[in-house]
Amino acid sequence: MLHIVTRRAALIAVLLAGIGITSTAPAQQPTSDPLPSWNDGTPKSAIIDFVGRVTRETSSDFVPAPERIATFDNDGTLWAEQPIYVQFAFAVDRVRALASKHPDWKRKPPFKAVIEGDPKALAAMGEKELLTIIAVTHANMTTDDFTRTVSDWITTAKHPRFDRLYTDLVYQPMVELLGYLRANAFKTFIVSGGGVEFMRPWSERVYGIPPEQVVGSSGVTKFQLRPDRKTLLWKEAKVEFIDDGPGKPVGINRFIGRRPIFAFGNSDGDLQMLQWTADGSRARFMGLVHHTDAEREWAYDRQSHVGKLDRALDEANARGWTVVDMKRDWRTVFQFEDATVGAR
Amino acid sequence: MLHIVTRRAALIAVLLAGIGITSTAPAQQPTSDPLPSWNDGTPKSAIIDFVGRVTRETSSDFVPAPERIATFDNDGTLWAEQPIYVQFAFAVDRVRALASKHPDWKRKPPFKAVIEGDPKALAAMGEKELLTIIAVTHANMTTDDFTRTVSDWITTAKHPRFDRLYTDLVYQPMVELLGYLRANAFKTFIVSGGGVEFMRPWSERVYGIPPEQVVGSSGVTKFQLRPDRKTLLWKEAKVEFIDDGPGKPVGINRFIGRRPIFAFGNSDGDLQMLQWTADGSRARFMGLVHHTDAEREWAYDRQSHVGKLDRALDEANARGWTVVDMKRDWRTVFQFEDATVGAR
Repeated sequence: MLHIVTRRAALIAVLLAGIGITSTAPAQQPTSDPLPSWNDGTPKSAIIDFVGRVTRETSSDFVPAPERIATFDNDGTLWAEQPIYVQFAFAVDRVRALASKHPDWKRKPPFKAVIEGDPKALAAMGEKELLTIIAVTHANMTTDDFTRTVSDWITTAKHPRFDRLYTDLVYQPMVELLGYLRANAFKTFIVSGGGVEFMRPWSERVYGIPPEQVVGSSGVTKFQLRPDRKTLLWKEAKVEFIDDGPGKPVGINRFIGRRPIFAFGNSDGDLQMLQWTADGSRARFMGLVHHTDAEREWAYDRQSHVGKLDRALDEANARGWTVVDMKRDWRTVFQFEDATVGAR
Repeated sequence: MLHIVTRRAALIAVLLAGIGITSTAPAQQPTSDPLPSWNDGTPKSAIIDFVGRVTRETSSDFVPAPERIATFDNDGTLWAEQPIYVQFAFAVDRVRALASKHPDWKRKPPFKAVIEGDPKALAAMGEKELLTIIAVTHANMTTDDFTRTVSDWITTAKHPRFDRLYTDLVYQPMVELLGYLRANAFKTFIVSGGGVEFMRPWSERVYGIPPEQVVGSSGVTKFQLRPDRKTLLWKEAKVEFIDDGPGKPVGINRFIGRRPIFAFGNSDGDLQMLQWTADGSRARFMGLVHHTDAEREWAYDRQSHVGKLDRALDEANARGWTVVDMKRDWRTVFQFEDATVGAR
């Protein structure tokens, strides 16, 4: 029996080696387009060139597979973030659902603004108001209950402009990019200012990124053992970690423990992640999504309440980072556009 | 060209499917022993039986590969922790190395005890003393400098009893177990009370566990951008998270975001991780290493300063968790024993 197993293992090893040879073969004309939703242009070329350089063993820029860490912001980089962050839309829906048990909320700020639902008032909320909303929508429950609530909401709630599930508003070019990187032995991570427990219930299904590769903001949780031996983790109404701005390299160090060689963001909240990546000693790629397409998505940057892109855009331009012009560089923004075309 | 690529892809897909069939084939006599350093007995049988049940697709206990999360304590579970935790031995060596610049330390507690090096005094240190030692050995430097210091130390410092590198004191049966689980598509994590940045520089080389799968205690770090655009993460002398006791399920939830189906510890500090695992809804395995071998390693449990095993042992016995009796169940403890035998 053993020799059969050994021969089979040898055969598999040869074929796996064959796969390795394919991915590290000398540069040649690509036989198929790994990024079909990207128009030809500088960003697409820069991505394909970078992946080629770090995966070819003969390249001076070669990076061994375990070091191929790629980090992506979520809101505005992997999916739409307008007119308010999706997680905030979730919180608004939760406040409205809970309002029947809290009749005083109709007159009481900040709940009043949430129940009435003025996007500008919501976007302009201060930290104190936000924390009050988070406390009633994200805390004082078990992690399992929160996960269930998110899972229910994300499979039913619709975006007001597109009347589509929020997970339909992921960017098709970025989903392709995640897959392309993984096919080249990159490990893809989300590094988001959003709540880690809000993203994990659906990140694997939607992005192919498992929960353990999602880094985000978090609240304090406490372990409890009940007298019947049942366990729970209780979500307290206290912020533990904000994974935004200078918190992103801190979060990357804490959760991943290696410096990325590839990072993509879209706002000033991603600047320090990009600076941290740019300061690595290996070949590295820094990218920004610039929202320039008011027709298919939104156009916003320096003045936006949500996803403000100002200092990071200046720094990207000054330092030669890749800036994706959504209108110019993406053939498709959302997958459902193609479905619509196909249905005509 | 395209059809060649497609045929090659199809061929590879068939062979990869073949690998899948191999690992999920009906139970049969194993063709080779996956755990040669384990003596036959209840723990070895329980491990092999569990892995068989969760990986066979026809089994009612089948668990899909992405959910096969296995968590291991480090000190006393994967490597020796006597007479003091290895990380504490590192701190002692650092204090001694730094003492030449701090002549007052020879007379000043707690540095005096550290420089004189009485194991009992070191093991009995209180939290305040420990934090003072950590502040001078683990903080007020960049994460990169700390990583370099650990990497240098771990490849040169020797354990006083065995005169061996500390990484020679990893348990060969547990290294085999980690590999056996990974060969069955488990994702293996360390979940340790030790410092995450102390383990990551060598965890991949020694255990095959990459940095991003190491969960541990951590201090506060702050991102800095210098005027020359160089970046750094500065380690402050503040504890951020203690990944021990009830902190272990909290850390698992924060870093991994899924409940383990397999967990191994050796002390009361692992009890809550085991309780959290035991309360899962799928098939699950809870294991404890009981240190019973004073000749090859150490014998200690309920009264030990380091690695106290008391409540967790009672609970393991009461609930039928697997307890490894090191003396009885491990044919080999350290790999160098075999080398010694071979050299005779």
